[in-house]
Amino acid sequence: MIGTLIIISSPSGGGKGTLIKEILPRIPDLRYSVSFTTRAMREGEVDGHDYHFITRDEFDRRIADGEFLEYAEVHGNYYGTSREQVAKETDAGRDIILEIDVQGAELVMRRFPDALSVFILPPSFAILRERLAARGTENPESLTLRLRNSWGEVEKYGLFKYVVINDEVEPAANALETVILAERMRSIRQKARVQDILDSFDASKNNDPGD
Amino acid sequence: MIGTLIIISSPSGGGKGTLIKEILPRIPDLRYSVSFTTRAMREGEVDGHDYHFITRDEFDRRIADGEFLEYAEVHGNYYGTSREQVAKETDAGRDIILEIDVQGAELVMRRFPDALSVFILPPSFAILRERLAARGTENPESLTLRLRNSWGEVEKYGLFKYVVINDEVEPAANALETVILAERMRSIRQKARVQDILDSFDASKNNDPGD
Repeated sequence: MIGTLIIISSPSGGGKGTLIKEILPRIPDLRYSVSFTTRAMREGEVDGHDYHFITRDEFDRRIADGEFLEYAEVHGNYYGTSREQVAKETDAGRDIILEIDVQGAELVMRRFPDALSVFILPPSFAILRERLAARGTENPESLTLRLRNSWGEVEKYGLFKYVVINDEVEPAANALETVILAERMRSIRQKARVQDILDSFDASKNNDPGD
Repeated sequence: MIGTLIIISSPSGGGKGTLIKEILPRIPDLRYSVSFTTRAMREGEVDGHDYHFITRDEFDRRIADGEFLEYAEVHGNYYGTSREQVAKETDAGRDIILEIDVQGAELVMRRFPDALSVFILPPSFAILRERLAARGTENPESLTLRLRNSWGEVEKYGLFKYVVINDEVEPAANALETVILAERMRSIRQKARVQDILDSFDASKNNDPGD
């Protein structure tokens, strides 16, 4: 059985990180892809947990060695998804979440059309601006850049299979959880389990069914 | 907004009726398509609620008048889905469940490829036989016929988007509920709501985004 690649994206400040933290402990056999990044560590972040924080040189070396499933420059920093970690988890039948920017998501969705893709949409532009400002991690230029980029990003929601409107954390996390659990019920994802059941029907054909 | 057509099918005795009764009161704005049938009413059934019980002549009249979205002869009885009820509910933006045999489901899925389709699969042939026998509604010939038909029916599971394995009622009902709720989060089902949000991003373009 192959695990599902789950692509979760949003504009910067859209709340994808918060929602993912909320649902990870709720769903069994669900992993999180720890990205590599050249951006500075924010307060509270842990190297190897939130991101693998590396230098630009190290990032270039990994690009050259083909270690990234996708990578992108976003707001002046580089972000990349580990090909190895994703392969390891999905080969073991576990679902893995890729928390990526819209640009990176587009690439991965094109390469993996069977992936489960979810766009996290803030309930309005005003609320996105409020949340980004409240986070206090961006200087005014960076804040403006992120908000400008959000204009084009939200218009791409239709490329994603699902949209979760992130008005309040709890209902939005429930919606995200629902979408991930439903994916596990897809016919194409249950072939192995279903085959065992079909075998029991096959076996019964040797007898009169009423017996 | 257009409601979703939800096709729920299984072999006879697969438990689709029980699961649907379980989830109907849990999900808001979800309706049940009351089929027309020529089969005899079973104990506990209510005309107009479980089915509209009609004569063979009346059934033929409705076929001739094009009143059925689909109809099929199953185990010697006729079953038909009311075109009018389905249109009324989906036009009003409400999701509607069609509980139909595998034959009828195939027809409706072909005509409505965007429908949400769910196959309810018993956990084994032996358990399907037990459940059908325990129901006590079939004579031995009818029981044998239903079990014989189940062989071909379970092999069609792959035509359905989702499979819910009906081992125990509670987890199976939760799975079915999850699949129906997830469908409401699809990008294509949320266009109207998303458009209002995109408009707030559009409006912000007249100002500097940092303001």
